[in-house]
Amino acid sequence: MENRRFVDRLLACSREKKSLLCVGLDVDPLRIPEPLRGHRDWVYEFNRGIIDATGDLVCAYKPNLAFYEALGTYGLEALERTMRMMPPGVVVIGDAKRGDVGHTSSAYARSLFEVFRFDAATVNPYLGRDSVEPFLSYGDRGIFLLCKTSNPGSGDFQDVVCEAPEGRMPLYQLVAAKARLWNERGNVGLVVGATYPRQLEEVRRLAPELPLLIPGVGAQAGDLERTVLGGTNEAGELAVINSSRGVIHASLGPDWKDAAREAARTLRDEINGYVAAKEAGRPR
Amino acid sequence: MENRRFVDRLLACSREKKSLLCVGLDVDPLRIPEPLRGHRDWVYEFNRGIIDATGDLVCAYKPNLAFYEALGTYGLEALERTMRMMPPGVVVIGDAKRGDVGHTSSAYARSLFEVFRFDAATVNPYLGRDSVEPFLSYGDRGIFLLCKTSNPGSGDFQDVVCEAPEGRMPLYQLVAAKARLWNERGNVGLVVGATYPRQLEEVRRLAPELPLLIPGVGAQAGDLERTVLGGTNEAGELAVINSSRGVIHASLGPDWKDAAREAARTLRDEINGYVAAKEAGRPR
Repeated sequence: MENRRFVDRLLACSREKKSLLCVGLDVDPLRIPEPLRGHRDWVYEFNRGIIDATGDLVCAYKPNLAFYEALGTYGLEALERTMRMMPPGVVVIGDAKRGDVGHTSSAYARSLFEVFRFDAATVNPYLGRDSVEPFLSYGDRGIFLLCKTSNPGSGDFQDVVCEAPEGRMPLYQLVAAKARLWNERGNVGLVVGATYPRQLEEVRRLAPELPLLIPGVGAQAGDLERTVLGGTNEAGELAVINSSRGVIHASLGPDWKDAAREAARTLRDEINGYVAAKEAGRPR
Repeated sequence: MENRRFVDRLLACSREKKSLLCVGLDVDPLRIPEPLRGHRDWVYEFNRGIIDATGDLVCAYKPNLAFYEALGTYGLEALERTMRMMPPGVVVIGDAKRGDVGHTSSAYARSLFEVFRFDAATVNPYLGRDSVEPFLSYGDRGIFLLCKTSNPGSGDFQDVVCEAPEGRMPLYQLVAAKARLWNERGNVGLVVGATYPRQLEEVRRLAPELPLLIPGVGAQAGDLERTVLGGTNEAGELAVINSSRGVIHASLGPDWKDAAREAARTLRDEINGYVAAKEAGRPR
């Protein structure tokens, strides 16, 4: 693990790969490609196939822990082995949405950053700063705080207007404001769903220096052009745009790896097209 | 697993055991009792010792997943085996603080309720109703939503005053209000830290029918009398009062099991004393 700021590692990675694409490794026992059905080690083999097919096209992979935990220790053991075959130069984000009181959060951070050795993790901010601090203390790892999530119910609490010392604003904006404060080590980012383009633009405006992890394109049907234009910074960077099912389940037939590669390449190219358009439109 | 409302199972359990005490099974490799040091299966043996020593004194056990995950698949496998030796008639709460978008939350619910077979789980409400719904759909399992957590930073977001359709109130009270709405199956409870007695009393007043899971007595030093008086309902019930370190690490010497039993019995009796005082003071 390199000893530099996470934000710099992420930038270096997306520049080298010329890609803002993240592929979500969300294994699903109901969507196993035909050639792997009945295979004892299908979780590992599935991830290996997807990583082989897409490794040069992405800046990041994002396994969501939920899908591995749902398979019991078998799934988690396969995830541990998956971690060991990750190609160098991609950022691997443990999508775990953890968060607990102080010494318990330290145990979660240890699990994600030392046992699994993720480069970054998603963290739920509800418990406040001291619950996030154990993650923040790993200066070379990224912490993506949930801000405005992609699901329909995210408004229940995240959109509620708060009377905070920072001003009157929806809760998700207060999270963005705190995230900036907590970013003393250059390792804080935010999760904002592509399904809420207006809020995505708002967060980018409020936090121009923070990386945004943006799920919700593809299966969840966020608008890709608006996502890229609104989610990247002025330089067309600092966005990590995630697709899971749209890439990894592009085909369940014998062509599953080629189909995943094709879906990832198409998505990467579309993203890069919008980035180029944004750059072209920028005053010099 | 019995097919009745979680709240009724919890009440039956605390009545039969005459106990509101929950013991947190938070295994810690730096606090292994002397006789188990170097033991290959120390996690399982530690839990077995604690459960043997305290099984008749508690209404619930609460393993926090963080401590098992920090040990890797070894820890989780020991937790799976721990679950299989739980005595009948106690409620086992998976303290996992999970929460994710719809189909991912379903995977977490499957992991906690079907793989580990917990009777209840703690869930982070930040993502809103549809993130909680997959847990709620298990009608016979309990869902303790994080409301006002015991840590010093809990005020960062939970105490912020919100302008909600339900009225002007701190976020933790809005969570309590939503929890009552979502309690269609008699399986919703709230987590409120004993370290915030005023807020605990407020939540009990706002949600008289919901079970409260109350961490923060003992090591975190909440006031026990005020916790019992404020946290139980009118009948002196519906509170699950958790102690972890104060019981399980009462001694690390050869007397570790006896010391845990003694600590648990003392705490249970103190709680029951305050319950009796509350009942005696109630108008008839």
